[in-house]
Amino acid sequence: MKALVFHGPGDKAWEEVPDPVIQDATDAIVRIDTTTICGTDLHILKGDVPAVTDGRILGHEAVGTVTEVGPEVSGVAVGDRVIVPAVTNCGECSYCTDGMPAHCQSVGGVGWIFGHLIDGLQAEFARVPFAGTSLVKVPEGLSDEQVLFLTDILPTGFELGVLNGDVGEGDTVAVIGAGPIGLAAIMTAGMKGASRIIAVDGDEFRLEAARTFGATDTIRAGSGDVAAQLKEMSPDGLGVHVAVEAVGIPETLDTCWAAIRPGGTVANVGVHGAPVELPIQDLWIQNITLRTGLVSGTTIPELLAGIQNGEIAPERFATHRFPLDQIMEAYDVFGNAAEHRALKVVLSAG
Amino acid sequence: MKALVFHGPGDKAWEEVPDPVIQDATDAIVRIDTTTICGTDLHILKGDVPAVTDGRILGHEAVGTVTEVGPEVSGVAVGDRVIVPAVTNCGECSYCTDGMPAHCQSVGGVGWIFGHLIDGLQAEFARVPFAGTSLVKVPEGLSDEQVLFLTDILPTGFELGVLNGDVGEGDTVAVIGAGPIGLAAIMTAGMKGASRIIAVDGDEFRLEAARTFGATDTIRAGSGDVAAQLKEMSPDGLGVHVAVEAVGIPETLDTCWAAIRPGGTVANVGVHGAPVELPIQDLWIQNITLRTGLVSGTTIPELLAGIQNGEIAPERFATHRFPLDQIMEAYDVFGNAAEHRALKVVLSAG
Repeated sequence: MKALVFHGPGDKAWEEVPDPVIQDATDAIVRIDTTTICGTDLHILKGDVPAVTDGRILGHEAVGTVTEVGPEVSGVAVGDRVIVPAVTNCGECSYCTDGMPAHCQSVGGVGWIFGHLIDGLQAEFARVPFAGTSLVKVPEGLSDEQVLFLTDILPTGFELGVLNGDVGEGDTVAVIGAGPIGLAAIMTAGMKGASRIIAVDGDEFRLEAARTFGATDTIRAGSGDVAAQLKEMSPDGLGVHVAVEAVGIPETLDTCWAAIRPGGTVANVGVHGAPVELPIQDLWIQNITLRTGLVSGTTIPELLAGIQNGEIAPERFATHRFPLDQIMEAYDVFGNAAEHRALKVVLSAG
Repeated sequence: MKALVFHGPGDKAWEEVPDPVIQDATDAIVRIDTTTICGTDLHILKGDVPAVTDGRILGHEAVGTVTEVGPEVSGVAVGDRVIVPAVTNCGECSYCTDGMPAHCQSVGGVGWIFGHLIDGLQAEFARVPFAGTSLVKVPEGLSDEQVLFLTDILPTGFELGVLNGDVGEGDTVAVIGAGPIGLAAIMTAGMKGASRIIAVDGDEFRLEAARTFGATDTIRAGSGDVAAQLKEMSPDGLGVHVAVEAVGIPETLDTCWAAIRPGGTVANVGVHGAPVELPIQDLWIQNITLRTGLVSGTTIPELLAGIQNGEIAPERFATHRFPLDQIMEAYDVFGNAAEHRALKVVLSAG
């Protein structure tokens, strides 16, 4: 088969590789029908994720069709159309049974293994471990594009931004960073009753997108003191109820600390590469909460229901489409997303 | 009347002052029967709390008897024995109705005003604002010493350590710092099902106290890598479920970051004077929660029930007793607590 193979920082190729085979009794083989590229893939290509080594097939977001199952797979069968979530989970360890498969102990403590610790989903076929508990069947009547973003960005924004942020009825929510993950938080914050959703970004295209995804207000980063503007827009000027950090740099967390009201929650979604200063001398008395995390994907059923009842329409992330075998071109577009006004690129087989 | 008056850093006196009078219709006057000294009072005397100015009567923890009520006070009456909690609350603002009177907007956004922004409780009498919503009647049959620590340290340890820490059935809980607040967290962690409670402190007397207050294990700070020892004592070596920081310095928060398991909670109870480094480059993926806060006192009824049913016995904090007019001597003892093997000093009127 053909797959997108990582060959070290800056080096990748769409090339011939051996077909995947069942290795464990709980594996399935899935034919990839639709996949996409994640910001994390770009980080890998920059060499930021040293666990990814030469020869690894990239990708951790796909919709496909089961072509083979191991003898211990139950719940999915050959021919099923399935969502392949970014996080793999055994369903049996303490983290899986406690509702946090992000830290499934059976796959090594961090549930994200596709295109990271094992071969990924930017390929014609893929091996899926723990298929019975990891795969999610696509309900009748939903297209691949409608469900593709349930593999990662939509539950990431919802679980780590909205739910970790404890978004509640009537809340004022700031989302710092309106890339795909920030937009996913913006799209889903209304599901938990946020009444004011303020998007902050330095890019006008992303702020436009934020407005169409559900932001009630936008602030252009760089236009003065963002935290002060957020406070001004918040009830009684005390600060926002929830601040979602969706960038991953110290400056945006600083904005969150400065904009949060007493009793509020900072939900960190960004991937950080450096420590940050926590102004605990101010925050100790403020009854604030900070939450971090990797997506678990446990909300996929709730999000599927939101798609089915028309509450959310994640297919709107798809701004650019390519055949799977033109994935190298798709990477060029996604890697220059601002220039191409791209949110997510969709790659379709056959 | 006589009261303990602050006269600037390092300077205090037990001296004659005017009797307090009703100023607002929701005020009450309370005769102080029993009071105590808090570590915060020592901070004030060092000059660490500039909002406290010359002439301020100190103290924010007392049990007393209502001697006068304003025309709009309901719920308490002259002659009632009452707990005077450290936090004053109006019962009507958005924070009070949302269960977080720590940030009562009617008293200025921070509910701790006694011995801080208004005259306090280390006196023969005190004026209590919003008396109907702030005072708590002492149930029949409980002594002053049994309920005195419900004014501050016990709900502080319980609300900010145990509840903010999301302590649950079977959890392994580390309490870093076994001063009165840490001991309060240790005493109450069992009420939420903690199965292993590990106290960490540099002082052997405090560790002894910790064992009698409910700690199942102790670690002497300074005896090697504390975080590594905590991890070793935790299920699967993954780290503790809850780390309660009850010191207020960067080093102890560092221990919490290093000892917490994926999905765990760091509950900050310590009062911090300086920023700390947050290792978000490690924590972003770990699904951890950090919570901070000032006590609200909303759990006083639950703690009273715990005292009545024998589950907790907070009178055990009282290691030293003085008549109220010997409060200067009591300060000397409490200010040198390690030397005197003191936990809390109790001052009783008449």
